Amino acid sequence: MPKITENLIQNYRITDGKRFRLKDIDPGDTGKFKSKDEATGLLDRGVQWLAEEQEKLYASDNWSLLLIFQAMDAAGKDGTIKHVMSGINPQGCQVHSFKAPTSTDLDHDFLWRCAKVMPERGRIGIFNRSYYEETLVVRVHPELLMRQKLPADLIGKKIWEHRFEDIRNFERFHSRQGTVIRKFFLHVSPEEQKRRFLSRLEEKEKNWKFSTSDIAERAHWEKYMEAYEDMIRNTATEYAPWYVVPADNKWFTRVVVAAAIVDAMHGLKLEFPKVDKRKRKELEAIEATLKREK
Amino acid sequence: MPKITENLIQNYRITDGKRFRLKDIDPGDTGKFKSKDEATGLLDRGVQWLAEEQEKLYASDNWSLLLIFQAMDAAGKDGTIKHVMSGINPQGCQVHSFKAPTSTDLDHDFLWRCAKVMPERGRIGIFNRSYYEETLVVRVHPELLMRQKLPADLIGKKIWEHRFEDIRNFERFHSRQGTVIRKFFLHVSPEEQKRRFLSRLEEKEKNWKFSTSDIAERAHWEKYMEAYEDMIRNTATEYAPWYVVPADNKWFTRVVVAAAIVDAMHGLKLEFPKVDKRKRKELEAIEATLKREK
Repeated sequence: MPKITENLIQNYRITDGKRFRLKDIDPGDTGKFKSKDEATGLLDRGVQWLAEEQEKLYASDNWSLLLIFQAMDAAGKDGTIKHVMSGINPQGCQVHSFKAPTSTDLDHDFLWRCAKVMPERGRIGIFNRSYYEETLVVRVHPELLMRQKLPADLIGKKIWEHRFEDIRNFERFHSRQGTVIRKFFLHVSPEEQKRRFLSRLEEKEKNWKFSTSDIAERAHWEKYMEAYEDMIRNTATEYAPWYVVPADNKWFTRVVVAAAIVDAMHGLKLEFPKVDKRKRKELEAIEATLKREK
Repeated sequence: MPKITENLIQNYRITDGKRFRLKDIDPGDTGKFKSKDEATGLLDRGVQWLAEEQEKLYASDNWSLLLIFQAMDAAGKDGTIKHVMSGINPQGCQVHSFKAPTSTDLDHDFLWRCAKVMPERGRIGIFNRSYYEETLVVRVHPELLMRQKLPADLIGKKIWEHRFEDIRNFERFHSRQGTVIRKFFLHVSPEEQKRRFLSRLEEKEKNWKFSTSDIAERAHWEKYMEAYEDMIRNTATEYAPWYVVPADNKWFTRVVVAAAIVDAMHGLKLEFPKVDKRKRKELEAIEATLKREK
């Protein structure tokens, strides 16, 4: 398993963003696979393995796992989360979708609404969008910054640089506290987005997925790509790497994301907690008592 | 006001801990005051001024103020908070006392329980004890670290150094987000603590204040002083200074703390929000309509 996953993910994992360029990764890339059929078996194995490892994570109750998903609309965040995590026990998994901040959110620092729902020990937390929106949508639409009620003295030239630094420190702190962080940018092309938008408009049962605001953001494609690139350049680290996952083929996105999560959990060498001799004796005594019961 | 406060606090404010030594500050110091009577008028003026400034802070709704109190038992934290903040409108002030962490707290990183109750914009937040306990009681009693359910791989030699770094970054982040942070170590002598403990034991109406665990911690005085000194050396910064306040005389503690808070709020140059021309006209129209009502 580890070797297969490493081959799958190595081209898309960024742990040092200095030389990262978004254009080096092709949204249509499918690695060594020629078709969906070749990848299906591997995805199924990955999903099953994850379900088993999650039980050990939950039983060990010290590590936690945070998976962050960022992407343009229709890049496949929801579908990827649904498919890759399909075997997972929901008791050990918390998904949070971050939409526009509420007035209560804006009464606090920009990490607040995420910080208070970081995954508890033993759990997997999934952020469908996250505090990274603060360096994406807020950067493309600077008027949103004005709504954040920051004191005017604190909005300076270095605001994005500081936000990146604060995010890096936040993630390093959490990794020191036992949260393993993996971040996914699902990299879709504007052509594929157009195809997916059209299918949402044409097929009635997909209509609910389409929001008119999505089309407005599409007009800012270039600005968003610059913001994503800068975000990855500034926040890809050893302790919280970004995976820039080609997203024009949903099946490929899913198998790469699954492989990256398998790789992260494999690194934890999880085992069911062992019971020591004294505890073992105690349990045996209880077992015997229960059996004697009439 | 600013000149008086500056004279009062300059000897106790630490913004760069490198050369700080706890023994340089005498718990019995009362500055230029010879008696409580000399300080009373000043404290009253400070308390009144704070109440007025708080209204502006609340109305402006962008800055917030965080006051952190740390000390040995009976050093006067509760009394100082009560007296200095006596004029404050409780709607704009939130006091949080942090006792032993709950099992839910321990399921998260050590900043979590404090991070989620950081003061909202426009508010004053007071932490009676705080995340600094993680570098104090946990350091004096390392067995507490074992209860924190950290993965064993993450408990290394650098744990305290990392905690200090993570706290510095946390405070810098919050100061960039508009929270002005001031930290107070009320520095009492063991002799004065003994006197206060005895009075809690002798006077029936003070009995409730005495906890048998307080006496146990007294036995670790030296270790605590080393932990406090190291904490201040590592976390005193320009953006979140420590005030090491002599605490053998309650009246002096209070006047110094009040002066430090006055100084912090003075620095914000708070004003009631101004209404622009258009808004002014709108308000005048509403006023006229109300007056025409029968």
